[in-house]
Amino acid sequence: MQLGMIGLGRMGANMVRRLMRSKHECVAFDTHPDAVQALVKEGAVGATTLDELVKKLAKPRALWLMVPAAIVDRVLADLTSRLEPGDIVIDGGNSYYVDDIRRAKELSAKGLHYVDVGTSGGVFGLDRGYCQMIGGEPAVVKHLDPIFAALAPPIESAPRTPGKEGPTRPAEHGYLHCGPNGAGHFVKMVHNGIEYGIMAAYAEGMNILKHANVGRREHAADAETTPLRSPEHYQYDLNVADIAEVWRRGSVVSSWLLDLTAQALGSDPDLAHFAGRVSDSGEGRWTVTAAIDEGVPVPVLTAALFERFSSRGEDEYANRLLSAMRHAFGGHQEKPAAQ
Amino acid sequence: MQLGMIGLGRMGANMVRRLMRSKHECVAFDTHPDAVQALVKEGAVGATTLDELVKKLAKPRALWLMVPAAIVDRVLADLTSRLEPGDIVIDGGNSYYVDDIRRAKELSAKGLHYVDVGTSGGVFGLDRGYCQMIGGEPAVVKHLDPIFAALAPPIESAPRTPGKEGPTRPAEHGYLHCGPNGAGHFVKMVHNGIEYGIMAAYAEGMNILKHANVGRREHAADAETTPLRSPEHYQYDLNVADIAEVWRRGSVVSSWLLDLTAQALGSDPDLAHFAGRVSDSGEGRWTVTAAIDEGVPVPVLTAALFERFSSRGEDEYANRLLSAMRHAFGGHQEKPAAQ
Amino acid sequence: MQLGMIGLGRMGANMVRRLMRSKHECVAFDTHPDAVQALVKEGAVGATTLDELVKKLAKPRALWLMVPAAIVDRVLADLTSRLEPGDIVIDGGNSYYVDDIRRAKELSAKGLHYVDVGTSGGVFGLDRGYCQMIGGEPAVVKHLDPIFAALAPPIESAPRTPGKEGPTRPAEHGYLHCGPNGAGHFVKMVHNGIEYGIMAAYAEGMNILKHANVGRREHAADAETTPLRSPEHYQYDLNVADIAEVWRRGSVVSSWLLDLTAQALGSDPDLAHFAGRVSDSGEGRWTVTAAIDEGVPVPVLTAALFERFSSRGEDEYANRLLSAMRHAFGGHQEKPAAQ
Amino acid sequence: MQLGMIGLGRMGANMVRRLMRSKHECVAFDTHPDAVQALVKEGAVGATTLDELVKKLAKPRALWLMVPAAIVDRVLADLTSRLEPGDIVIDGGNSYYVDDIRRAKELSAKGLHYVDVGTSGGVFGLDRGYCQMIGGEPAVVKHLDPIFAALAPPIESAPRTPGKEGPTRPAEHGYLHCGPNGAGHFVKMVHNGIEYGIMAAYAEGMNILKHANVGRREHAADAETTPLRSPEHYQYDLNVADIAEVWRRGSVVSSWLLDLTAQALGSDPDLAHFAGRVSDSGEGRWTVTAAIDEGVPVPVLTAALFERFSSRGEDEYANRLLSAMRHAFGGHQEKPAAQ
Repeated sequence: MQLGMIGLGRMGANMVRRLMRSKHECVAFDTHPDAVQALVKEGAVGATTLDELVKKLAKPRALWLMVPAAIVDRVLADLTSRLEPGDIVIDGGNSYYVDDIRRAKELSAKGLHYVDVGTSGGVFGLDRGYCQMIGGEPAVVKHLDPIFAALAPPIESAPRTPGKEGPTRPAEHGYLHCGPNGAGHFVKMVHNGIEYGIMAAYAEGMNILKHANVGRREHAADAETTPLRSPEHYQYDLNVADIAEVWRRGSVVSSWLLDLTAQALGSDPDLAHFAGRVSDSGEGRWTVTAAIDEGVPVPVLTAALFERFSSRGEDEYANRLLSAMRHAFGGHQEKPAAQ
Repeated sequence: MQLGMIGLGRMGANMVRRLMRSKHECVAFDTHPDAVQALVKEGAVGATTLDELVKKLAKPRALWLMVPAAIVDRVLADLTSRLEPGDIVIDGGNSYYVDDIRRAKELSAKGLHYVDVGTSGGVFGLDRGYCQMIGGEPAVVKHLDPIFAALAPPIESAPRTPGKEGPTRPAEHGYLHCGPNGAGHFVKMVHNGIEYGIMAAYAEGMNILKHANVGRREHAADAETTPLRSPEHYQYDLNVADIAEVWRRGSVVSSWLLDLTAQALGSDPDLAHFAGRVSDSGEGRWTVTAAIDEGVPVPVLTAALFERFSSRGEDEYANRLLSAMRHAFGGHQEKPAAQ
Repeated sequence: MQLGMIGLGRMGANMVRRLMRSKHECVAFDTHPDAVQALVKEGAVGATTLDELVKKLAKPRALWLMVPAAIVDRVLADLTSRLEPGDIVIDGGNSYYVDDIRRAKELSAKGLHYVDVGTSGGVFGLDRGYCQMIGGEPAVVKHLDPIFAALAPPIESAPRTPGKEGPTRPAEHGYLHCGPNGAGHFVKMVHNGIEYGIMAAYAEGMNILKHANVGRREHAADAETTPLRSPEHYQYDLNVADIAEVWRRGSVVSSWLLDLTAQALGSDPDLAHFAGRVSDSGEGRWTVTAAIDEGVPVPVLTAALFERFSSRGEDEYANRLLSAMRHAFGGHQEKPAAQ
Repeated sequence: MQLGMIGLGRMGANMVRRLMRSKHECVAFDTHPDAVQALVKEGAVGATTLDELVKKLAKPRALWLMVPAAIVDRVLADLTSRLEPGDIVIDGGNSYYVDDIRRAKELSAKGLHYVDVGTSGGVFGLDRGYCQMIGGEPAVVKHLDPIFAALAPPIESAPRTPGKEGPTRPAEHGYLHCGPNGAGHFVKMVHNGIEYGIMAAYAEGMNILKHANVGRREHAADAETTPLRSPEHYQYDLNVADIAEVWRRGSVVSSWLLDLTAQALGSDPDLAHFAGRVSDSGEGRWTVTAAIDEGVPVPVLTAALFERFSSRGEDEYANRLLSAMRHAFGGHQEKPAAQ
């Protein structure tokens, strides 16, 4: 079927490519003409204005937005004034599901349909396919099924879950209609919250392995340093790259994130290319906020989020205050960083 | 080569089976004659006393212990008095690496060699193979290589890590000589610590999804209940089994633990067969203790451990004290559980 | 000066009493005539309708709301239609500061002034005084100064902070104009967030003390129970009530919450009157949400909040899933609770 | 009565002074003659060798060690060879209670008595008195009662706990015989663990207050920065020093640590004298380790400990790995620190 793609960045352009592999017709729009031109060369229909994009699509139109969450509302304003009742707008980016609920209502008042799709797969999606979590009206989601099916990973990318028999269920094909509007991004939000937790679990564990030789280091013998009681238990120089690799086969912690970890450590075991200032892009925060609203405890996911904040120095004032208190009651002086 | 296996429980028996598939000769010992007999029928040599076991093994003997951590020292005492210099004892269970360091010294004084092997793979190891993390003297570990290779998963069980070229490294074969004695169980300990963290990340995320309909529930309007400000944002009845399934293909959080989660939720989405009292069997505790000794922060791994303690009610006295304080300063009464 | 009090519950009635001790004239209103009557007997002017209340107050009127956060907006709607430009409404309850910002704007459009006051002191405020954190326009806050001063604790209730010299600053008198509207409840919110953290620190510590005799208990020797390596280190039967009491004098952890803890444990060391289902009433949640918005890590305050959620069983589904995973990969069975 | 003091640092010297105020006879020993001389001028008997110290004490001797935990065993070795059966050695420092249990046994074999005393009070103890938590044999602890009583704070330093009537209990006098050997330092250990938690609660809360103006800052509008949805809610420039001061009177979070916080912020609200590298000196680690041994969840105390580790950069490798993973799956680049 035909789809208009708005936003031809890394994600949007690759989605167009994957759709064309399944013979779907894509009208590709971006504010950067070069990005449009590149896809036209690969077989897409190009559009360099919204008017042109809308004109080139048959009714009811289906338009997929793949733009930064911060500008979705602006693009929607420009776009929806050009659309007609029955047209469908899909937000495939990382929007907050709370915005989806509002937008779906706003579009509905104009006779337009809104679909929110959380997509996971990152820069590998072109070849691996995109896992899609979808929120919207059942009939509209059903209408778009060929698009979702083409973007999704092949069913063979994972062995069938033991116990499942007979005809496959939709979820086995790598995309899922999760519920009404917002449900797609809600599930994607939690997906990313879990991702934070898993990443932190590996990172903390690897940090323990990396420090398994602390018993060999000379330790300051002053009142501000806790002595290591059993240095003989921490004499290991471990090869973390090899350890990540060995866990990939047969172990309980094998995962795609571990595959990536093994690759990253394989090429740079000291991770010297990174400073350790870890960004967060919203979903982790929204996940914790949702948990708090629900009254559900999520200490692991929250600890993972806060580690990122701390990695960027946001704990500094709190730490200064701790040093100030220690100085106040015990006369403790801060120890400078080891040279 | 020849190996004596001590302990024919689920893990030990399956290891014998996997070794025999590679034509290794196994002498199988257990205090339960039935367990020995079962393996004899499958081709193993049987032994019902330690004396018999030792007699049936050629020198230098190689003996693999697959017994509960709590009885390793007792078995070692019985066993080593029957061994001769040059013999090798392998502890393949879940021993604390600190015990390995001690035991290796004790055995070394008798001319015996000790090897510690952390094995991951659980009940699936017979077919999938066992990921093995090994600590011991280089020559001894090298001598045992055919055993480790036979137990390990096939290299094909994971695609080669991009960037790796040329001849395969040992870690790619699913087993790794991590370092001197204790290193094997040290790495396995951290492996399990990470496992706790990953499991908790999934569990917390699924709990958020399960509660995504709290906006539909009627809420008490009293001073002891925080009102939900936006019930319209929590109206989703999500199918957690389908969500676990859809994440298996193409998503960033795909993993073997997710495969198992999808299977468990697929057969029982409400998990009614479980009460939620989660055991811990030592490695998580030791991981956190090691991190503390090293001065390395592991908030995620620790939160995961403490969730297990709380699941067994170990937070009860602390919670009572919180209620007592709230009553003391604010006159707050506890709310009974909802009926 | 004259003040109208709306809401004569435990907090509101005692505030009226404390104000009358300083010879302020209070017009006391409540929907329960008995509550009004009780204060009239003690010297207050009574009002049983809002019309009566408004009529009995001189212009510009000053009205203090001491009602549950959930009904503030309803009361404001009824009240403000009866007021005249220049009148002042004070919300002294536990409102969310985000609501204050909105309300101040709404009232301002009608020429009314809004002041938000976070008050701490609980059921002891009548005698100890109320610590007040205030948000609003400077001139309006200044106008109300006699009220705040009368409600506040005496300066003698704490020794002067070393280093402070000369005339006292307002903060030394137990009340503080923190900033524009919302600032009062923002500071109170964080105050309560800190309160959660401190309470949890005591509760967790006391729980450790209470379990200091675990080495004496018989332990199950099965694979689902981590053995205690050094039972000889956990042989203490500690008197937690005495320990709370001894810390009250001279120790670094002395505090008012510890005083209350000592009292609670003194009368019931086993806390048998409490089940350990700990409510939370919003401020802890809002504190964490604010920290997340600010990008500030607050692992301690969040852990304290989540302990309350868990105490009410909100972790149950997550825990079941953990047991289900353990069963799936390792065949582990749940252990029933000890009888 | 007579007491020998070994170690005349800040704590030991002040204890001698406080004892002399109550007319106890102190024999003061230190390896630094100047420290001895200073106390001799104030009325103490001086000793510059252990032999001299032992000689100047009447039998049964009572000796109080106030030396760094790391050298206690060495001092004990030198000292005990000079003592006679019936003599008493008190360790008043910050020893690990596990060492106490061992030492008590070792001394007992020589007919000597060992008493462990956890003391809290810091640099203020001379005037405020020392809160003492005591472990040892009942008769020996009773024998030393005059010493403990003189060091303890006066009962007037806290109002009597409501509900306590009749003759005072020992705990009300600021010192407590907690149990057999090790119990004193066990309780002190948990005391310090709680202290970590309380300190962190204040520090995190103050950090939120300090960032309450983030809505005013310009924010990067890129994919690596989470946009602040409601900047209008974070427009407060709060005076944290005043806020700490106002909470000292009448609020639920008043405490001695808050008094110190108010003083520190009063003299330096930006805490520019501190870098925020927070030491930990063992008790926090031991507290968490004890909790893990007991199977008791302590997420708040642990989070507080880990914040200290992170403040010293011990999370760096973990954070680098997180950045490496994000780069691997999403092509995310690290953002440099703001200039």
